[in-house]
Amino acid sequence: MKVSARNALKATVKKVVPGSVNTEVTLEIAPGVEVTSVITKASADSLQLSEGKEAYAVIKATDVMVAVD
Amino acid sequence: MKVSARNALKATVKKVVPGSVNTEVTLEIAPGVEVTSVITKASADSLQLSEGKEAYAVIKATDVMVAVD
Amino acid sequence: MKVSARNALKATVKKVVPGSVNTEVTLEIAPGVEVTSVITKASADSLQLSEGKEAYAVIKATDVMVAVD
Amino acid sequence: MKVSARNALKATVKKVVPGSVNTEVTLEIAPGVEVTSVITKASADSLQLSEGKEAYAVIKATDVMVAVD
Amino acid sequence: MKVSARNALKATVKKVVPGSVNTEVTLEIAPGVEVTSVITKASADSLQLSEGKEAYAVIKATDVMVAVD
Amino acid sequence: MKVSARNALKATVKKVVPGSVNTEVTLEIAPGVEVTSVITKASADSLQLSEGKEAYAVIKATDVMVAVD
Repeated sequence: MKVSARNALKATVKKVVPGSVNTEVTLEIAPGVEVTSVITKASADSLQLSEGKEAYAVIKATDVMVAVD
Repeated sequence: MKVSARNALKATVKKVVPGSVNTEVTLEIAPGVEVTSVITKASADSLQLSEGKEAYAVIKATDVMVAVD
Repeated sequence: MKVSARNALKATVKKVVPGSVNTEVTLEIAPGVEVTSVITKASADSLQLSEGKEAYAVIKATDVMVAVD
Repeated sequence: MKVSARNALKATVKKVVPGSVNTEVTLEIAPGVEVTSVITKASADSLQLSEGKEAYAVIKATDVMVAVD
Repeated sequence: MKVSARNALKATVKKVVPGSVNTEVTLEIAPGVEVTSVITKASADSLQLSEGKEAYAVIKATDVMVAVD
Repeated sequence: MKVSARNALKATVKKVVPGSVNTEVTLEIAPGVEVTSVITKASADSLQLSEGKEAYAVIKATDVMVAVD
């Protein structure tokens, strides 16, 4: 399946912390660069995410804000 | 200003393409890893974004989806 | 690719209206039930969307609001 | 109240699963076609959602992604 | 229609700037406090927004970030 | 840090209700006008939010819907 979201960054799952409804997933998208994701527990289970697994961080372009110092 | 969005990735502005209402900004967050952002033209102007400038890609954790092959 | 978004509704593309930056896509997800999507023109081009094509409407559960009369 | 969100799909509530902060609501928008929604528990309570109730799935056009196989 | 979005702030329309696809709407939610909204042109037309009209700014709780200096 | 989100409304923190994963924050943006925000507990902790503290409600223009009666 190919999705219209503009960003699909190759990543490695570093940590999976399940809550009661949501699961927090830490993805490493480059050495030392991590992105935190919060998805529903049902989705995390269905994707069978676990430490070390290859995955993608998928982000819509309109959900990326830009900031400057 | 410190924002509640969980992800604030250090980046370099690679490209700024202004449209009539929105501006597309390409950010390099690691060597060879780019993220595309679409923000309003008014915001892009106010941040004075231009190629080579240091910036951040700011993304809420709930806006990061996870995908697997 | 399997994405963490909870909803992936089978659909048929009914209409594709390209703008300068964004493209409006009308998807029929059941007979007489249509969903309107606005994605970037670049994404629409890359997915090669056209009338009659099979596609999916992908929506995160947290992006579905509920209303009552 | 009429909202600017482009999609307001007529639906029947199929399931309401309350968590501690969020509630998961399953809406049937056509025979056999279901959409999952996660809203805050406070909102679900205020809308008095229960199985069989008529409701709407309200979704902004920019929150509908498109995917193809 | 009553929507699950947590915030529905009473407002007065101060400005409506139509683009080709999107329309920018400025809403005054308290004396001197304005909120900018970008909705699709089709939605703005359907709501018949014009300066001075009473309206609401509707915002999901998860779309409100918090920042501190 | 200056963010591309169009709306940054000055506010006072009225209430902070921590859950297991998310925290609900009530912000007063004008006398008698409150906005509810749901952010991750980790973000709320890192911002050290507490009643009476000055803060901002930061909202992207595309996340503000408009409604009329």
